Amino acid sequence: MLSTTARTTLRRSKDRARTDRADLYAILDAGLICHLGVLAGGSPMVIPTGYGRIGDTLYLHGSTAATSLRAALGTPVCVTVTHLDGVVLARSAFHHSVNYRSAMVYGLARMVDDPEERLAGLRAVTEQLAPGQWDAVRLPDRKEMAATAVVALSLEEASVKVRQGPPKDDEEDYDLPVWAGVLPLTVSWGAPEPDPRLAPGIPVPPHIGNRQPRL
Amino acid sequence: MLSTTARTTLRRSKDRARTDRADLYAILDAGLICHLGVLAGGSPMVIPTGYGRIGDTLYLHGSTAATSLRAALGTPVCVTVTHLDGVVLARSAFHHSVNYRSAMVYGLARMVDDPEERLAGLRAVTEQLAPGQWDAVRLPDRKEMAATAVVALSLEEASVKVRQGPPKDDEEDYDLPVWAGVLPLTVSWGAPEPDPRLAPGIPVPPHIGNRQPRL
Ligand SMILES: Cc1cc2nc3c(=O)[nH]c(=O)nc-3n(C[C@H](O)[C@H](O)[C@H](O)COP(=O)(O)OP(=O)(O)OC[C@H]3O[C@@H](n4cnc5c(N)ncnc54)[C@H](O)[C@@H]3O)c2cc1C
Ligand SMILES: Cc1cc2nc3c(=O)[nH]c(=O)nc-3n(C[C@H](O)[C@H](O)[C@H](O)COP(=O)(O)OP(=O)(O)OC[C@H]3O[C@@H](n4cnc5c(N)ncnc54)[C@H](O)[C@@H]3O)c2cc1C
Ligand code: HEM
Ligand code: HEM
Repeated sequence: MLSTTARTTLRRSKDRARTDRADLYAILDAGLICHLGVLAGGSPMVIPTGYGRIGDTLYLHGSTAATSLRAALGTPVCVTVTHLDGVVLARSAFHHSVNYRSAMVYGLARMVDDPEERLAGLRAVTEQLAPGQWDAVRLPDRKEMAATAVVALSLEEASVKVRQGPPKDDEEDYDLPVWAGVLPLTVSWGAPEPDPRLAPGIPVPPHIGNRQPRL
Repeated sequence: MLSTTARTTLRRSKDRARTDRADLYAILDAGLICHLGVLAGGSPMVIPTGYGRIGDTLYLHGSTAATSLRAALGTPVCVTVTHLDGVVLARSAFHHSVNYRSAMVYGLARMVDDPEERLAGLRAVTEQLAPGQWDAVRLPDRKEMAATAVVALSLEEASVKVRQGPPKDDEEDYDLPVWAGVLPLTVSWGAPEPDPRLAPGIPVPPHIGNRQPRL
């Protein structure tokens, strides 16, 4: 089950809440990037960034000097992962909506210091955006690790909200001669574009060429 | 030109900054949703939401009772719009990246009270997510308008960051027998799904059926 703290309790469209932890995992595992909210210099700062999940921990990474990661430490943060699945076209402007799956995670971020956890966190971040690559490429060396901050956030306090299905119009509007329904949105991978400096004779590996959207 | 305030000055990968206001407009106009960061109850809150742009003003909308919109008023907020264009696959884990275009806007949000501006703002929000619909559907009535908050944010203080192109590996890694390049990501519209309650004989209008991604 997901948490039921005050700040993770939906106040609008509460019927769209999902309370099963599996729904949180599904949304996170299907995503590619998140938006990290931190308080920086008295103002919220919303940074798009990659992430990875191991169990009930979310990992982020970046420069040891990154403003957002430094600001994230020891203060409350919010990480949001959003899937926009379609636009809901109603007979009235008011009842327009979107179909979506989204997750919000609140907590205190912590700097990961343990070398093994740092490597595991970076592996999770890498496999989230580029599955199969960790075992295919040159792994980080000491200098690269020293430049890198790995930040962890517990998934303990999180909420999930989902909208699906057709529009809901006012009863009297169903007679209007207006098309209504859903225009679905899909995300897909294009053909791999080789690096201009790629050495001849290196084929596209299947984990890249046959990559499927996680949905 | 974009602003050059301290908080909108890129500190990491500064060469990826764009300073032309036209780049900001292009990223906003091509987007579908944003992530709104507000300070709520001592913690950042990152809410996915629709938006629309008129000139140098961004409009958001929602319930007059929405936590995020209420928290947005009179305090600093940050709105981020992100396009993920591809995953950059390098020969080393460290040099993996993503191709992207993103915009961050900082400012004080204001509640829109003027009835004309409220309607214009809602029209902009509607046309951003569902172009062509404003002229096709039943427009908001007095009761619907009374339930709706329209919030405005100036685009005065904003930054744009863009990464494009192939990976950049360490010189000695170009000899590794590892495929490298970019796996592009595209967003596209699926076939319109009619509302099960759609009256017979109403065709899909061209602005819905032939909708092109804005890119
Ligand atoms: C899809 C996507 C995925 C990303 N993944 C990662 C990742 O996994 N790890 C990582 O370290 N970084 C990632 N980035 C880059 C990230 O958004 C930041 O730019 C970077 O981490 C530097 O952050 P900082 O906190 O040091 O920002 P600073 O450079 O200190 O930010 C100062 C100011 O620069 C501007 N700025 C910074 N970043 C952006 C931006 N992205 N768009 C517009 N304006 C900006 C803002 O006005 C900000 O207030 C990603 C970006 C995108 C769009
Ligand atoms: C792609 C997309 C587009 C959207 N567009 C709009 C829009 O244009 N206008 C609009 O009013 N709303 C929009 N929403 C819904 C929006 O994200 C909020 O859920 C809604 O506005 C209620 O906000 P609130 O500030 O009152 O939150 P409250 O319901 O008061 O939030 C309380 C708690 O509920 C949880 N919660 C709230 N929203 C979400 C969420 N989306 N995902 C996960 N947990 C959540 C969080 O834990 C939050 O702290 C959109 C959502 C998505 C995913
Ligand atoms: C699929 C795997 C990865 C992806 C998609 C990725 C993506 C990114 C992105 C987009 C940035 C921001 C660059 C910018 O500011 O535009 C970044 C920064 C950074 N990444 Fe990664 N990364 C990955 C793996 C790694 C690994 C394995 C390491 C460390 C060993 C690492 C270390 C860093 C560091 C140190 C920075 C900060 C660079 C700077 O600001 O100078 N990354 N990463
Ligand atoms: C394309 C046009 C529009 C889209 C895509 C859209 C989308 C949304 C979404 C996704 C929500 C959040 C619902 C949720 O919590 O899950 C919302 C809320 C809301 N919208 Fe819109 N909207 C549009 C147009 C309008 C218009 C024109 C009005 C007013 C006249 C309006 C008024 C409202 C109100 C009042 C809420 C709050 C509902 C509540 O929390 O009770 N919307 N909108």
